[in-house]
Amino acid sequence: MDTPCLLLDEPRMTRNLARLRARLDALGVALRPHLKTAKSVDVARRMMPTPAGPATVSTLKEAEHFAAHGVTDIVYAVGIEPGKFARVAALLERGVELAVVLDSVEVARALSAFAAARGVRAPVLLEIDTDGHRSGLAPGAPELLDVARALTATPAGGATPRGVLTHAGESYACRGVAELEAMAEQERAGAVQAATRLRAAGVEAPVVSVGSTPTAHFARALDGVTEVRAGVHVFFDLVMAGLGVCAVDDIALSVCTSVIGHQAARGWLLVDAGWMALSRDRGTAAQPVDQGYGLVCDAGGRVLPDLIVRGANQEHGIIARRDGAPWDMAAFPAGTRLRILPNHACATAAAHDAYHVLDARGDVVARWERINGW
Amino acid sequence: MDTPCLLLDEPRMTRNLARLRARLDALGVALRPHLKTAKSVDVARRMMPTPAGPATVSTLKEAEHFAAHGVTDIVYAVGIEPGKFARVAALLERGVELAVVLDSVEVARALSAFAAARGVRAPVLLEIDTDGHRSGLAPGAPELLDVARALTATPAGGATPRGVLTHAGESYACRGVAELEAMAEQERAGAVQAATRLRAAGVEAPVVSVGSTPTAHFARALDGVTEVRAGVHVFFDLVMAGLGVCAVDDIALSVCTSVIGHQAARGWLLVDAGWMALSRDRGTAAQPVDQGYGLVCDAGGRVLPDLIVRGANQEHGIIARRDGAPWDMAAFPAGTRLRILPNHACATAAAHDAYHVLDARGDVVARWERINGW
Repeated sequence: MDTPCLLLDEPRMTRNLARLRARLDALGVALRPHLKTAKSVDVARRMMPTPAGPATVSTLKEAEHFAAHGVTDIVYAVGIEPGKFARVAALLERGVELAVVLDSVEVARALSAFAAARGVRAPVLLEIDTDGHRSGLAPGAPELLDVARALTATPAGGATPRGVLTHAGESYACRGVAELEAMAEQERAGAVQAATRLRAAGVEAPVVSVGSTPTAHFARALDGVTEVRAGVHVFFDLVMAGLGVCAVDDIALSVCTSVIGHQAARGWLLVDAGWMALSRDRGTAAQPVDQGYGLVCDAGGRVLPDLIVRGANQEHGIIARRDGAPWDMAAFPAGTRLRILPNHACATAAAHDAYHVLDARGDVVARWERINGW
Repeated sequence: MDTPCLLLDEPRMTRNLARLRARLDALGVALRPHLKTAKSVDVARRMMPTPAGPATVSTLKEAEHFAAHGVTDIVYAVGIEPGKFARVAALLERGVELAVVLDSVEVARALSAFAAARGVRAPVLLEIDTDGHRSGLAPGAPELLDVARALTATPAGGATPRGVLTHAGESYACRGVAELEAMAEQERAGAVQAATRLRAAGVEAPVVSVGSTPTAHFARALDGVTEVRAGVHVFFDLVMAGLGVCAVDDIALSVCTSVIGHQAARGWLLVDAGWMALSRDRGTAAQPVDQGYGLVCDAGGRVLPDLIVRGANQEHGIIARRDGAPWDMAAFPAGTRLRILPNHACATAAAHDAYHVLDARGDVVARWERINGW
């Protein structure tokens, strides 16, 4: 294999998927996996309960790609805007049950009018903001009912309220189990509150969709929730390990790299994985253990806990000890293969066009393509 | 056009290219443009003096791609390692003059032996470290001559010393014209010193290659230098503007995005360009003016100087005022198109598979494909 390239440890992935499935089964809630992390049909089929879904996507290109591969039950979990209505309608007309997300009267009216004119029924989830992370209406916001009514104001066809969706993105900033559990409960309670308000006003709201990988793993109860969305659990990463959601040895994704040089006096080992291969994501910088641009492993995947990628240029990674001290690099001549565990699996995977899939012996047994773009 | 997508203002690009060409012409030095920023044949042909080059690349995939499009004079400016020798040899055998870079006796010996066994002549530039940025030998390092001798130790064919190469990457940390000029002189002097030492020892060193976009624009003299490498000057970006290398209005690259929502109470405008479209690069964070994840312009490219992308999730950008205060968003309903100027053109361009090329009127007149990967 040419380096840098992306490795996927399939046994770890399988274990990670089984773990979340068992948790959600115990809580009696369905999983709607988010396909934005992997963006691969081969991975998606292992994440989804059935080949037809359900699934979550972050772009319409993902929706179109997975629909072309037989996925018919999709939530596009980023707020819709009028410039994207035509692509949504095209998927609906092909028989894909594609639910979109919105949080304003303005967009609800526009979508209703568009869908009615086009003669399609567009399922809609109202976005709820349960943690101040980014978009959505507060669970108790008066506008919630206005938005729901705007959806149904157009009589024929048009947009159809299907319930609520929230994402507790602030869970990434939690510290410790108690905070994660509290955030999961806050996410659940807010979504259920919003759905309850809709139902009390006569609006159908069969779907109560919550999710982030941390809250999915720490929710103690999900009463009233109908589905959980999570994505990064398939691979995990150093941010998730830093949060305590997984162990470092659960991380299924790594970048294979080659040593290209040494600056022994500075304690730097140079490798051919720079930020182009690792991504610029520095998600662990805000955590108790800063892993630089990634944690270094030997070619077999054994963690070398003292070594991190302390700097990254476009095609150069600089590996150094955490304490910056010089060290003996004799065991790492030019050409030595290493693996780098990523801060953020979504960002690192996006830098590559395929996964090199490893079996339990560490042999490459498959190449799985992935997509990017919009 | 679907959003997010990448826009390239061709008149600005043309002006940027003419500016550096005029500078280097005045200094009597050739340009060997770095194609890693654009990774596009269409852009490369506008950057290079001739369709055959010269050119600089950061990956062997770039070398192979541009060679397939007629470029025959290439420097691969990232340290070579044995795992890549076969691909280098394949290009040499196709008649591409591909120079590689190294800085150790270990790699020099390995390359010599490989090239001799394969029966190819491999041109080599010795990497010089003029600023402590990453790889290379100090200009006065005794090992420099050892590496040169290791290259020629194998009698038949093998590796051929062609001179020296340095990159003053620390120029990105300079503040003000005086520091930039001093860094350019340090880069020049170090490279010339190394070449002079080689020649005094009887090693041929016709090439003295220096370069970074900041030093290329601030060098007052380039005596002894035979070529300058620069890449980001083709587009420029906010980091370059922050350094004073260009004006904000010189930046030729932007991401077109659509408004998808509002959090008026927090002063947040949500757009569909997150870090997947903008990159995670926060290069301006260390500069006097932190531009967040990018500076916001209207659809026509006019800068809205109070607005930056203050946060980015995978597919969500959060636009806010620099001071965080609420503001009137009435002029920005959902679906409004905006443009985001990037921190780092290399990183943002890499997030996209094509440039939508704008003429002087702002009309899209072409789509230029680009590549990624290794």
